[in-house]
Amino acid sequence: MAKRTFPLDRVYGLLESGPVVLLTTRHKERNNVMVQSWHTMLEFEPPLIGCVVSNRGFSFTALSATRECVLAIPPVTMLDSVVDCGNHSGREIDKFAQFGLQTQSGQDVAAPLIKGCLANLECRVIDTRLVRDYGFFVLEVVHAWHDPDIQDRRTLHHLGRGHFMQAGETIKTRSRAR
Amino acid sequence: MAKRTFPLDRVYGLLESGPVVLLTTRHKERNNVMVQSWHTMLEFEPPLIGCVVSNRGFSFTALSATRECVLAIPPVTMLDSVVDCGNHSGREIDKFAQFGLQTQSGQDVAAPLIKGCLANLECRVIDTRLVRDYGFFVLEVVHAWHDPDIQDRRTLHHLGRGHFMQAGETIKTRSRAR
Repeated sequence: MAKRTFPLDRVYGLLESGPVVLLTTRHKERNNVMVQSWHTMLEFEPPLIGCVVSNRGFSFTALSATRECVLAIPPVTMLDSVVDCGNHSGREIDKFAQFGLQTQSGQDVAAPLIKGCLANLECRVIDTRLVRDYGFFVLEVVHAWHDPDIQDRRTLHHLGRGHFMQAGETIKTRSRAR
Repeated sequence: MAKRTFPLDRVYGLLESGPVVLLTTRHKERNNVMVQSWHTMLEFEPPLIGCVVSNRGFSFTALSATRECVLAIPPVTMLDSVVDCGNHSGREIDKFAQFGLQTQSGQDVAAPLIKGCLANLECRVIDTRLVRDYGFFVLEVVHAWHDPDIQDRRTLHHLGRGHFMQAGETIKTRSRAR
């Protein structure tokens, strides 16, 4: 994995198109990973992200206790691992070992980075006001990594009921949006 | 426009892949529309959506005052209108008239539906606790419409700095996620 620092002021461009992300946690010396599509940017810089983690999932306890996680963005070539992670709970198995996901240490948080992902975002929880009602955590990205060596850079986008959309062609427009 | 009711319990599948949406409001007999990519599902049913509307934009006042809006999902063929809407403020012009967007009445809210969009979601604001800090409104979808007659059903996904990604191929997997 070519682990390069990615500028924080460009993180929004990684997330606002709605890619599936893998959310990793580390709690009581145990790593876990869940699949996540319910996230949104909240601020450009420092990059703030809102994301939903159900209190029925195993990651909820870890995220609530440690207030740290990593959001990793898998390319389409990792689809099988994404599906496997989504179909199982960390309560029962070690998903990293079971599904061949390799980890790497981050810089600022204990949750692991995932090798082979297009980007890994180290996050800290900064606001939990909407956690009770919606499982909605506000995260600040404290360090971002990307891997420029990955050839197929298409992201995955969840459509529900077993279907995923692969990122298609990119179009350049005269949009003046950031 | 073939305006058909869409089941509320399937709305999540329209939004969690991160499409660009057009957010319409109607305030003081004036319609407005803005482009939006910072949104996330919060609950399946009733469908709850969190979305960011900056207090610098013209829509913020309308949404705050009326607590109603429509989220319309444009297909790729509407890219030019999307870019035009994003590049201008409703403070200066009537974006509907200027950019050839045709509207249609909804059922439960005064904000207009947009013809030619894949889906139109009538929404009410139900939670404003995070509006002051992040412009984050929690919306409940009270009625959903879709147009099954639109041929090209690919969505647009914002990547930032003028770039949009078109939805690519859909893959069916053995994911057991809803």
